[in-house]
Amino acid sequence: MAIEELKILSRLLPGLKQTSSVTVGPGDDCAVLRLPGGETELLAATDQLVRDVHYLRDTPPRLAGAKLVKRNLSDIAAMGGTPRWALLTAAVSGRTPEWVLEFCRGAAECAEEYSVSLVGGDLSGVGADTEVATLTILGDVPAGQAVLRSGAHAGDMLYVTGHIGNSFRSGHHLTFIPRLREGNFLRGKATAMLDVSDGLLLDAKRLAEASRADLVIEPELIPLRSGAALPNAMGDGEDYELLFTAPAGTERNWPPELAMPARIGAVRPGTGKILDASGTELKLERSGYEH
Amino acid sequence: MAIEELKILSRLLPGLKQTSSVTVGPGDDCAVLRLPGGETELLAATDQLVRDVHYLRDTPPRLAGAKLVKRNLSDIAAMGGTPRWALLTAAVSGRTPEWVLEFCRGAAECAEEYSVSLVGGDLSGVGADTEVATLTILGDVPAGQAVLRSGAHAGDMLYVTGHIGNSFRSGHHLTFIPRLREGNFLRGKATAMLDVSDGLLLDAKRLAEASRADLVIEPELIPLRSGAALPNAMGDGEDYELLFTAPAGTERNWPPELAMPARIGAVRPGTGKILDASGTELKLERSGYEH
Repeated sequence: MAIEELKILSRLLPGLKQTSSVTVGPGDDCAVLRLPGGETELLAATDQLVRDVHYLRDTPPRLAGAKLVKRNLSDIAAMGGTPRWALLTAAVSGRTPEWVLEFCRGAAECAEEYSVSLVGGDLSGVGADTEVATLTILGDVPAGQAVLRSGAHAGDMLYVTGHIGNSFRSGHHLTFIPRLREGNFLRGKATAMLDVSDGLLLDAKRLAEASRADLVIEPELIPLRSGAALPNAMGDGEDYELLFTAPAGTERNWPPELAMPARIGAVRPGTGKILDASGTELKLERSGYEH
Repeated sequence: MAIEELKILSRLLPGLKQTSSVTVGPGDDCAVLRLPGGETELLAATDQLVRDVHYLRDTPPRLAGAKLVKRNLSDIAAMGGTPRWALLTAAVSGRTPEWVLEFCRGAAECAEEYSVSLVGGDLSGVGADTEVATLTILGDVPAGQAVLRSGAHAGDMLYVTGHIGNSFRSGHHLTFIPRLREGNFLRGKATAMLDVSDGLLLDAKRLAEASRADLVIEPELIPLRSGAALPNAMGDGEDYELLFTAPAGTERNWPPELAMPARIGAVRPGTGKILDASGTELKLERSGYEH
């Protein structure tokens, strides 16, 4: 299906009736769910890993399994939360049992590394030669403190952790470290946050639209990954870095053990556009980013 | 992959290290997870729906989407819990956008019918001609009251709700009503419970093994669905009825608005075997049930 058609679910979900226990429904990195007691809220997100999209046929299965977990950890990081539990499914065909076992082990070991309990799962065969795995991650956050996409204010600065672009070809998409510690530190400091998984420009636009503000990005400030040019940073995706807005100076008291963020722009009053310093709108074209 | 190979995950999961927040890990209908506050516990389960396994290519997509939700609701019912939230993923190819939309709508409408909020999801394309959808269901239960598979005592009676066998061919697998009200009523009454999804004999064996007791089944007491003979009841699966153990007489004060259970046997001291009244072990053969 075309990318447009894959938006069916993201168009359908936000329109659904939600019960009063849902603080934040579909549309952010995680849903935020009200728990009895009220001191903490539950975070929940789900993501798929598809062969030939998110990894290649010859990618070591342990790395692919770990990537599935880390992608979801990145969603918890982007809310400022702590991951707790995960559930794994996989539908496979044309693989050896050893491959499947290694994939599951990769996921299980990665979960354990981040103190996440893998508490359920389901494995099935499919008739066609493909693989699709799904992970649902559950975490928690002090009630009312989840960092949403929608809180950016005019005057805030725009930051990003790590380096951007060329993640897939460089192998970073398999070896990245989810920014959980950085996300946790930013709780109460960042005004809006998400993780960069579909390309800086598209994800920045999501944050801008959710916050009903414009973002000015200074392209020369974007920290490029080795081998990446600006269009790669804008459009490649798979970076799993945190993009966030916060008051100016937030980087000054940054703990030295955390990945230092780069300031790449600022928030302006607006309606959800991404602009360069001259006020020209930066747009994604069908074939990727175009200035 | 062969059915043996699909057991990889169910062998791997129970061996994983679990954090102290996990009351019941992999192996029951749902995981039971400790929440801050302590008055309720979280239930979590995940299940896949695969075309040509769980529904056919020409099954109306709304019914298939609803079935995915109902299968998971049945897992919450089997713990005596209340469903709250769900997350949906689907990987598809070779379908029209209308088909996908109808599938998602079927899931969303069914969720709403049971007061479950669909709070997240992901849709992706796959290269091969297949469909795999996954639902993760979250629910809750008063702390310490989840009905596990492991609590059957010698002397308890064995019960099942509804009718068993011939579910797929009769269409029951698409139209069944998850036994949430019955499961809820049985909390504090049933000593062990699970939902019958893989055939009465296999699921009975799981309950017997988890409880370290034998179950005596009187085959003539099994309520057969129209069109089902005893081997269908024993081996077909897809029934989504509750199989439970409880003290004798539990059916006497049964609320008239709930599906009346049938007593089909009893619990004996033992090690996890399924016996008939003469003491002969009932066994599953490769091609299904054999007396």
